[in-house]
Amino acid sequence: MSTPLRIGIAGLGTVGIGVVKILRQKSALLEARTGRKLELTAISARSKSKDRGVPLSGYAWEDDPVALARRGDVDVFVELMGGEDGPAKAATEAALDTGKDVVTANKAMLAVNGQALAARAEAAARVVRFEAAVAGGIPVVKALTEGLAGNDITRVLGVMNGSCNYILTRMEDAGLTYQEVFDEANALGYLEADPELDVGGIDAGHKLALLASIAFGTQVNFAGVELEGIGAVSIDDIRRAGDMGYRIKLLGVAQMTGRGLEQRMTPCLVPKSSPMGQLTGGTNMVVLEGDQVEQVVLRGPGAGEGPTASAVLSDIIDIARGTRLTTYGQPAHTLVPATPARSATPAPYYLRMALEDKPGALAKIATVLGEAGISIDRMRQYTHEGPHAPVLIVTHKTTRSALDEALAAMGGTGVMAGEPVALRIENL
Amino acid sequence: MSTPLRIGIAGLGTVGIGVVKILRQKSALLEARTGRKLELTAISARSKSKDRGVPLSGYAWEDDPVALARRGDVDVFVELMGGEDGPAKAATEAALDTGKDVVTANKAMLAVNGQALAARAEAAARVVRFEAAVAGGIPVVKALTEGLAGNDITRVLGVMNGSCNYILTRMEDAGLTYQEVFDEANALGYLEADPELDVGGIDAGHKLALLASIAFGTQVNFAGVELEGIGAVSIDDIRRAGDMGYRIKLLGVAQMTGRGLEQRMTPCLVPKSSPMGQLTGGTNMVVLEGDQVEQVVLRGPGAGEGPTASAVLSDIIDIARGTRLTTYGQPAHTLVPATPARSATPAPYYLRMALEDKPGALAKIATVLGEAGISIDRMRQYTHEGPHAPVLIVTHKTTRSALDEALAAMGGTGVMAGEPVALRIENL
Repeated sequence: MSTPLRIGIAGLGTVGIGVVKILRQKSALLEARTGRKLELTAISARSKSKDRGVPLSGYAWEDDPVALARRGDVDVFVELMGGEDGPAKAATEAALDTGKDVVTANKAMLAVNGQALAARAEAAARVVRFEAAVAGGIPVVKALTEGLAGNDITRVLGVMNGSCNYILTRMEDAGLTYQEVFDEANALGYLEADPELDVGGIDAGHKLALLASIAFGTQVNFAGVELEGIGAVSIDDIRRAGDMGYRIKLLGVAQMTGRGLEQRMTPCLVPKSSPMGQLTGGTNMVVLEGDQVEQVVLRGPGAGEGPTASAVLSDIIDIARGTRLTTYGQPAHTLVPATPARSATPAPYYLRMALEDKPGALAKIATVLGEAGISIDRMRQYTHEGPHAPVLIVTHKTTRSALDEALAAMGGTGVMAGEPVALRIENL
Repeated sequence: MSTPLRIGIAGLGTVGIGVVKILRQKSALLEARTGRKLELTAISARSKSKDRGVPLSGYAWEDDPVALARRGDVDVFVELMGGEDGPAKAATEAALDTGKDVVTANKAMLAVNGQALAARAEAAARVVRFEAAVAGGIPVVKALTEGLAGNDITRVLGVMNGSCNYILTRMEDAGLTYQEVFDEANALGYLEADPELDVGGIDAGHKLALLASIAFGTQVNFAGVELEGIGAVSIDDIRRAGDMGYRIKLLGVAQMTGRGLEQRMTPCLVPKSSPMGQLTGGTNMVVLEGDQVEQVVLRGPGAGEGPTASAVLSDIIDIARGTRLTTYGQPAHTLVPATPARSATPAPYYLRMALEDKPGALAKIATVLGEAGISIDRMRQYTHEGPHAPVLIVTHKTTRSALDEALAAMGGTGVMAGEPVALRIENL
């Protein structure tokens, strides 16, 4: 193991430059820990001339990431460009086909094309590693794939998108609307180029799908993730949920049920006093539950140069040390297709609605819920000045399908003003 | 990698039997995840005849763990006997010398003899792995050795002894004295055969010394851990600290300072509202801080059959997958000796004392603190019926040596009744 490990990096944004800095500044430490030199040989990015604050002239330059991936002086191809296909996928395939291992932070590519890439890697006896794709600096892929590999995993859940958590936290703290905070965050550069990836829950959904694959031995199935972004979360809901002792988080849950694989990435209420309820800003938290270990909770920075580069380095270091793992914790051909099960697991729900201010209105709603077999845990009607009475209901556990039935029936009562809001409650 | 991995287990207590059960019940899952069969071939324990609730007649039996370690049909020797030397160490050495990898949960053996065992393993091109030795089911050794290997680790801290945390939680909840809860816990079998290992902080100190070695590339130095158990924590302190917004935890901190390696395992005050302050019962929490990743926090069960067996399995699975790591994250001969630095890092302190009820008593104490360069953040004098006035002081940050000087000088004021209590505050 005394030959250097030669590294090529495609994509020199924040994370890419973070990785370059670590390789430059920590060469002695990395050599002590891996037993060999980690040698950055070649780089590729969109603009060669841009000043990135780090001297890059000592590394071979490629305009084309595919050409970088094919170079003879690269052992590990580090893909930090992003995008579910296009150059990232082409370069990853080229790297595998020419005998390189791949380290990537690209959750979109793996969530959509991961099964094929894993099979391709295994056919070439190469590895594809992606610690940086999920929850930034938290070594959660490693914890799940290796640390808890002696468990039947029962559930994986977490807050995995720092931008959404920032927006929700800021709405609550400053009493601002979603749109106000969205515009502010966008102006500050906190959101992806296509902000829908963040606020639509897509980015977090990608991450959840990757963890679910490892957890349950299933083929990555991003299309099976029930996705709901935070765009419909109102400051009213944040306040009312707060009154009831909850906070709203974009929460992912993956769970194998008798009806199939449940994967949800939706705004949920969690107890304010719980560790998840206390998460603020860009911090991520992932909860791993297994039949042996019960519950392990990991918390840390979900993004940023240092934390994400730390995760990329952990994969590079594993490869340097000779650790060879399959992409999703077992060979790609043994991963089974997952039947999606939409919100199969019962939960309590938070309902907010506006009712016509006339006698019997609340009774009609309560009757509809009762007829759908949904019992009420708590109900509050607030004083109001306009024609409509704001009503909050926290139900006991029910299924999403029973709830959807009840919501449809409520529409027929003639006492509802507008659409009700329904948010799942996770008592973690 | 299609040959079976043959496993021998020495020690069939709770954890050993937990490992046997997983190997029996999850053979298909484990084979899917490792690509080979995990085959338990031989076992050893004190009593062959004891009914352990699992059929054991299919495995070869050895009365002598050393004989088990030397067997030709064992690839991995799993040491779950405990004890810093004696049979555990002899068998571990025998296993390494005859070409076996070793998985152990034995923190005492590694904290005291780990440097020699690591060197011995490397000389034989074998590995010694110990995920189960630290923080039960939490994959913290892996997180530190692998997940954060791209970081200069700046600090490691945590609550790593569930029994102590149980005792402190129970004292607070039930308003009982240390001795009452100790007796109760001992009767319930929650404590080690030698309870001092738990309540004296020794067990937790072993764990801290192991993590410090990995974190800082230093030889394990358990003797350098500043140890203070929970035996002197009174229900008064728990109540008074609670009044000030704190809870008392047996907290370990390892930090590299300009003066050397600081390793402390002592009762500390942490904010009640902090995640660490909210830890109850047997749950452990470890905080890893690195220059890149900032802070990663891991929480999970610190003991118990399932969680500890889960950790043992993760090491066995790593070996089955061909992952070969040095014991402390880098070759044993490159680990440097650590100069212990006693409480070098300044911190605020909580002081509780009883003063003679005479004019100027409090002023004398305040003067002594001022002369030692220690400023006071908060001070409270409580009403009292006896001759002595209970006084609480929370200082601003100071060094332990300045504090010790002040405490000595307080003794000379003639206004103190008894010894003052001084506890460090960690604002996590």
